[in-house]
Amino acid sequence: VRFGVNYTPAAGWFHSWLELDPADVRRDLTAVAGLGVDHVRVLPLWPLIQPNRGLIRRKALQDVATVVDIAGECGLEVNVDALQGHLSSFDFVPSWLESWHRRNLFTDPEVVDALAAYVTALTEAVADKPNLMGITLGNEVNQFAAAPHPTPHPVTEEGGDWWLARLTAAARSAARPGTLITHAMYDAAWYDDTQPFGPRHAADHGDATVVHSWVFNGTAQKHGGLGDGSVRHAEYLCRLAAAWHTDARRPVWLQEVGAPTNVMDPADTPAFLEATIRGAARVEGLSGITWWCSHDVSRDLLDFPALEYDLGLFTADGKIKPIGEAFAAAVAAARATAAVPVGDAIVLDDLRPGYRAACSPGGEFNQRWLSYETGPQIVLASKAADTALLRARGITRIV
Amino acid sequence: VRFGVNYTPAAGWFHSWLELDPADVRRDLTAVAGLGVDHVRVLPLWPLIQPNRGLIRRKALQDVATVVDIAGECGLEVNVDALQGHLSSFDFVPSWLESWHRRNLFTDPEVVDALAAYVTALTEAVADKPNLMGITLGNEVNQFAAAPHPTPHPVTEEGGDWWLARLTAAARSAARPGTLITHAMYDAAWYDDTQPFGPRHAADHGDATVVHSWVFNGTAQKHGGLGDGSVRHAEYLCRLAAAWHTDARRPVWLQEVGAPTNVMDPADTPAFLEATIRGAARVEGLSGITWWCSHDVSRDLLDFPALEYDLGLFTADGKIKPIGEAFAAAVAAARATAAVPVGDAIVLDDLRPGYRAACSPGGEFNQRWLSYETGPQIVLASKAADTALLRARGITRIV
Repeated sequence: VRFGVNYTPAAGWFHSWLELDPADVRRDLTAVAGLGVDHVRVLPLWPLIQPNRGLIRRKALQDVATVVDIAGECGLEVNVDALQGHLSSFDFVPSWLESWHRRNLFTDPEVVDALAAYVTALTEAVADKPNLMGITLGNEVNQFAAAPHPTPHPVTEEGGDWWLARLTAAARSAARPGTLITHAMYDAAWYDDTQPFGPRHAADHGDATVVHSWVFNGTAQKHGGLGDGSVRHAEYLCRLAAAWHTDARRPVWLQEVGAPTNVMDPADTPAFLEATIRGAARVEGLSGITWWCSHDVSRDLLDFPALEYDLGLFTADGKIKPIGEAFAAAVAAARATAAVPVGDAIVLDDLRPGYRAACSPGGEFNQRWLSYETGPQIVLASKAADTALLRARGITRIV
Repeated sequence: VRFGVNYTPAAGWFHSWLELDPADVRRDLTAVAGLGVDHVRVLPLWPLIQPNRGLIRRKALQDVATVVDIAGECGLEVNVDALQGHLSSFDFVPSWLESWHRRNLFTDPEVVDALAAYVTALTEAVADKPNLMGITLGNEVNQFAAAPHPTPHPVTEEGGDWWLARLTAAARSAARPGTLITHAMYDAAWYDDTQPFGPRHAADHGDATVVHSWVFNGTAQKHGGLGDGSVRHAEYLCRLAAAWHTDARRPVWLQEVGAPTNVMDPADTPAFLEATIRGAARVEGLSGITWWCSHDVSRDLLDFPALEYDLGLFTADGKIKPIGEAFAAAVAAARATAAVPVGDAIVLDDLRPGYRAACSPGGEFNQRWLSYETGPQIVLASKAADTALLRARGITRIV
C-alpha cells in the first residue's frame, strides 16, 4: 500500500498556479515528504491551462512539470489530475464552456475533442518525469453530471462510458507504459441512483478504481465522528468498489479521505485518521491511501465551506498539526503491519433497482455491512456465481 | 476630441494576461501609436486579479501597471477597465461568483464590498502613472443584469444607482484628482425597456457618459453596412446619451465603435469607419472616440462569434489593414476639422413608457432622427422647458 497526500498549496491555495513560486512548492513538499509518504496528488486548474478551446498554454504545462520536478527532488512521486474542474466547492470551468458558450462537458464532440487534447498535452508535459506516478482525468468530474450541481451537464450511462474511454485513451496515448491512468468520482457514483456515473464506470475504466471517502455525506451525522460507521466508511467504500471488479488483481486507490470538522470535533481528528487508515489498509488489493490534504486553507481566503479550512495535516503557515503527526505514525504503523485476509463476504443485490441508495450511509446494505465486527468483503449478486473470481479475491465464504 | 483604440493583444488575446509578455505589449502598442492616437483602453481579466473574494493579486496588478508604463513609453495615455466581466461573448467571472457560489453581482453586500476593494486596488496600482487617462468600472457590466444573459443577476433601477455610486466612489477614492472615472454599458441601456440599467444611470454616474456603438444591433441589418442609419448610428447614440445630461458640459465618450463584418462587407469597413468617425466627431461635447479594436483575434483561438475575429485595425500578426489606414486618415482629418454646431433639436418623449424601444434601431424615434439629413440634437420632453440647459447645449430651435 502506498501512502500519499493531496497537495493543497499553503500560499494562495490552488490560485497559486496563477504565479507559481517554486520556493513555496519546495517548502510545502519538503514538509510533506517529512511525513514519510511516497507520493502527492497535484491538481492544476484547467481554465488556466486551456483558457480557450484552441489554446493550451505551454508555460502553464511547464509549471506543472516544475512541480513534478520539485516533488522528485523531495523524493516524492506525483499523480497529476487534469480536469479541475471542481475543488472544495469551487468550480473552475473555462469561459468557453460557461454562460453564452455553455456546452455539454460530456457529450459535445468538439468539447470532448478539446478535453482529449488537454489531457494528452498535460500527460505529455510530465510523461518522461521519472517520478510520475499517474494521471487522473480530473477531480470528481461526475459532480458536473447531475443534481445537485446548479447547472448539470446531462449524460447517459453509455455517454459516460464513451467519455471515460475517450479521455483515458487520450492520457494513455501520451503516457509511458506503466503510468497509472485513472479517473475519480465523488461518492454519488456509489450511493445515488440518479448519478449517471456509477460503480461500473469506476471499475471499468483506467488502471485502478478510485475512491473518495468523505464522512460528511451523512455517515458522521448518523454515527458521530468517531463512530464505527464513520471510521470504517473508507474501508466500506473501498470494499464496495472492489465488488464491481471483474479482475481480482485490479487495485482500489483510496485517493481522497479526510477528517472534516463540520461533523467531528477537531480534537477527534487524529483518532479518526488512525482508525480510518488502519481499516482501509485491510482492504484486499488496496494500492494506496492519499490523505486530503497537505495544508489548511488560509483564513484570508473567503467563501470556502467551513470544513474546507482545516483539513490540512499542516497549518496554512506550515506548522504540523496533531493530525499530521497522527498521519505520519499511522503510515508507519500501516507499513509495519501485514494485512490479515478477510475471507467472508456478503452479497449486494445489484440487480435490484435502487441498490445505490441501499449502499448509501444508513441504507439497508450499508447497515448490514456495518453489523459485522470485521468488515466483510462484498460480492455482487450478478457475480456471485463466478467462483474463479471469488477465489481470486480470497473469498472463502458467503455469509 | 481624443482618439484612441481598444487594445486587444495580438498574441493570446486577453488570455495574454495569464503570462504578460512586455515585448508583445510594446510591439502592439508601438503599432497602435503609429496610427496617430493618443490613448488606448486596456481590459484586464477580473478573475485573474481577484480569484478569491479575499485575494487581490499584487503581481496581477503590477502587470496592469506594466502595460500602462509601456503605453506611456509609446506616447499613449491609458484607460483601465476593471470588471471584465464580459468580452467578445466570453464571460470572465471568478469561481466565487459562479455555480455553487452564485451570488448577485449587483446586490449582495459582501460581493459589492469585494468589487469595491478590487476597483480601489486596481485604481491604486495605476493612480500615479502620469499617462493614466481614466478608470472605467468595467466593460458593459449591464450585460449581466438581465436577459438575454443566460444567468442574469437581477437588480432594480435604484439598486443600479447604489452599485454605480459605490463603485465610482471606490475608484475615486484611489485616483488622483482629474482622473476620468466612468462606467460603460451596452446599448440595451438605451434601447431595451427591460434592461435595469438605463440612460439615466449612464448620465448620472461618473465623469462622462460612455457610449458603445455596435451596428449589429439591428441597425446594419436594416440599413445595410454603409446605409445612412448605420454610419450615423454612433452619432445618434452619442446625441441620445447627451439628451440625459443635466450639465451641458458633461462629455460623451464614444468608448467603443467598430465595423462588424457579420453585417457589412469587409471591403466596406474603411468607408464605414470614415463616415462613422466624421459623424460622431460632430457631436457637441464629444470627448473621445476609441475604436474597437487594435488587433484581429487569431483564428487559432476558437468559439468567438465570427464577427469578433476581424474587428482589428491590424491583423493578428501585426500588419496594418485597410481599415487601419482609413482609421489613421480619419483621425487626422477629424483633428483638422472644426465641428459645425448643430442648433436644431428634436424632442424625445421620455415620459412615455416604452421610450427605449422607440429609440432602438427601427423604432419610431430612431426613424424620426434619421429623417433629418443632418442629425439634430436630442432633447428630453422632461427637460424641454429648461431653457438654460438648452442654451448651454447650443440648441437654438426645437424642430
